[in-house]
Amino acid sequence: MENKKEFGKHYLVEFFECDGEKLKYTNTVENILTVAAEKSRATILTSSFHQFKPVGVSGFILITESHFSIHTWPDDRFAAVDIFTCGHMEVQAAIDEMKRAFSAQNAKVQVVNRGF
Amino acid sequence: MENKKEFGKHYLVEFFECDGEKLKYTNTVENILTVAAEKSRATILTSSFHQFKPVGVSGFILITESHFSIHTWPDDRFAAVDIFTCGHMEVQAAIDEMKRAFSAQNAKVQVVNRGF
Repeated sequence: MENKKEFGKHYLVEFFECDGEKLKYTNTVENILTVAAEKSRATILTSSFHQFKPVGVSGFILITESHFSIHTWPDDRFAAVDIFTCGHMEVQAAIDEMKRAFSAQNAKVQVVNRGF
Repeated sequence: MENKKEFGKHYLVEFFECDGEKLKYTNTVENILTVAAEKSRATILTSSFHQFKPVGVSGFILITESHFSIHTWPDDRFAAVDIFTCGHMEVQAAIDEMKRAFSAQNAKVQVVNRGF
């Protein structure tokens, strides 16, 4: 018998046609993700970002409410973000901030309820 | 115009009716997730795990191929895992290992193609 309780919402966000320059290096990507997390009113616990050579970034921020993650493909001007929240957060504020900061022309959001 | 290239597969995995003891503390959870990542033949870059008080864990492993994440609810015997891969990995081997190690009675897997 499965547990039918909902434990959180998982937002899978695709940012298309970004400014590729903003996706290349950890310092830029970490700063943008951190500001987005702050705007969502998440409580940041810890974070880690990895620089791929020559360009491209993978990173995550653990938050009290769960996590943010990002993987970037600068040559394709694409970033895949996910935001898992099991608390009260202003997720749309984070998405809007990233869309603006990455200069994304399109964003696609899928929401998956976790725990069903 | 959206980019229609596929950048990776995102596996959202729910483990139900686990052994709650195995979900309580970072040392157990980190060990299980690390072994699972190794069994999938992922290349681990870095990881971070956070202990909630009194029990419960959030954690992340960055891998060359993207990431593993986990959030646990020991009292509910539930764990939410996600595995994002943009490379060649044996994802099912990781899922099987976690199901066994957490003594989960049920596992549910959703796969989302990222980048469409």
